[in-house]
Amino acid sequence: MIAIDWGTSQLRGFRLDDAGQVIDRRRANCGILSVDDGQFAAALQTVLGDWLRADAACPVYLSGMIGSRQGWREAPYVDCPARLSDLVTHVIAVDIDGHGRQGWIAPGLLARDGNGDPDVMRGEEVQILGLGMANQRPQMTVCLPGTHSKWVSLSAGQVQGFATYMTGEVYAAVRDHTILGRLIDADAPMTAAFEAGVARAAAGGDLLHQLFKVRARGLFGDLNAADSGAFLSGLLIGSEITAAVSAGITAPVMLIGNGALVSLYQRALAQCRIDCQKGDDGAAAYGLFKLAREHQNGR
Amino acid sequence: MIAIDWGTSQLRGFRLDDAGQVIDRRRANCGILSVDDGQFAAALQTVLGDWLRADAACPVYLSGMIGSRQGWREAPYVDCPARLSDLVTHVIAVDIDGHGRQGWIAPGLLARDGNGDPDVMRGEEVQILGLGMANQRPQMTVCLPGTHSKWVSLSAGQVQGFATYMTGEVYAAVRDHTILGRLIDADAPMTAAFEAGVARAAAGGDLLHQLFKVRARGLFGDLNAADSGAFLSGLLIGSEITAAVSAGITAPVMLIGNGALVSLYQRALAQCRIDCQKGDDGAAAYGLFKLAREHQNGR
Repeated sequence: MIAIDWGTSQLRGFRLDDAGQVIDRRRANCGILSVDDGQFAAALQTVLGDWLRADAACPVYLSGMIGSRQGWREAPYVDCPARLSDLVTHVIAVDIDGHGRQGWIAPGLLARDGNGDPDVMRGEEVQILGLGMANQRPQMTVCLPGTHSKWVSLSAGQVQGFATYMTGEVYAAVRDHTILGRLIDADAPMTAAFEAGVARAAAGGDLLHQLFKVRARGLFGDLNAADSGAFLSGLLIGSEITAAVSAGITAPVMLIGNGALVSLYQRALAQCRIDCQKGDDGAAAYGLFKLAREHQNGR
Repeated sequence: MIAIDWGTSQLRGFRLDDAGQVIDRRRANCGILSVDDGQFAAALQTVLGDWLRADAACPVYLSGMIGSRQGWREAPYVDCPARLSDLVTHVIAVDIDGHGRQGWIAPGLLARDGNGDPDVMRGEEVQILGLGMANQRPQMTVCLPGTHSKWVSLSAGQVQGFATYMTGEVYAAVRDHTILGRLIDADAPMTAAFEAGVARAAAGGDLLHQLFKVRARGLFGDLNAADSGAFLSGLLIGSEITAAVSAGITAPVMLIGNGALVSLYQRALAQCRIDCQKGDDGAAAYGLFKLAREHQNGR
């Protein structure tokens, strides 16, 4: 099969064998926002045309913002609590080549908090589904760090609920578009000032006030340009983790993702004395594989 | 005398008579960041040259970022607790015409919290000093809304301490540089969604999570483009007020400032059942007048 995680800013494609092993992968900077006039079929041909031609009967499953209102075709959100079979039921078909070849788009998830306020995800639900058996627990909390970080509570094989934190996007907006940006050396390596920021956040206090410490500490030589970005990052990630913990989590926290950002979350969680484990790489591909298998069996 | 509140983005000049009444005022978009190569004397001549020539013996007092490291000459911060006489003692001289005519720059204030972290203000201390007798209380809290809002605690004639919140600047960065911006009609009038945002913030919960509600509620038609900016504003101002209240305030809160922003703070404080009063207009001018009178008397 071909599994495609198609988000706002990039497309990640995977070819999988019948056992769900990834045999090839490809990444392109053609997120849905870069596709003009709904030309998704053409974009898909450009990036993965050879894979599609190699086996015309190969099932194609897609997840992420491609199923949003701004995407190819809207796959409405499924209410939490939700299990795999609920996602399967709400998969929608899309004509992927303009000549009737069907592909399948996974739905997103909708959770409501105590106020009735909605929260949403698209793509992360498939990554959670793709956690290997080694990562499964009867009850668990999954954290997916990123532009919009998600904290997800699972039990009894269901996604019970989740909350989104705009941590990554607020970090970029504050660093690039406030007075703090002038104080930050954006190219500096991460330093122990990160832990100082996490500690400030964990001790409580309002984020709008804490942010100003980047400036005030800088004025008095408590924080240099190399440390300022690390401190800001620690404040924001620390604020997210502190809020998630106070909302209630079941340790160990399973982290899904890669690279430097996940390492920062590992550091911050360790500092807050919260057990964490790193989930499987390629969770999105394996999640779409599981979704596809159940969907194909039911047809 | 001539009183000048010279900040990052603008200069406000006032002529005052011997009783401290404002007899003329002028405003120019020549904040210190727009003055090249330290040409502050030339900028001052351009904006207020006629006032300066009209009376060569007229005392000139300045406050705000003009006394910062990026300004004309640095007037080091005075530690809190601080009273008027401490500000007077730390006024510094500056040659305002390049030919020896002296002007005087007020110092800023420095407060440290329980962690020893510094917080700073420049210009607001003079506005507080300028509160008329009708606004004075033995103990009081002053709020100065803005790009960097200040909450200041005063008692026994001293500024005991204060905290800065980056509310205005974070609002602009989030509105203009995150996904939320696309959902907001920036030209829409303020609506009752402002109160809904204040209520969410007052009920607690992490700001990084609450911000995402602008998007998620928008997806489900709970919030339209006209209401989204009002809701975002309510979330941020509500978060600031909630934090300031939990840090401890003495009602009534005295609001210093003008225009639409102060009206929003009045709405939010009323909603949170906190008594507030609007302080005098022209507080900066009167504060510099009081500073000048004591400074001249002591020379």
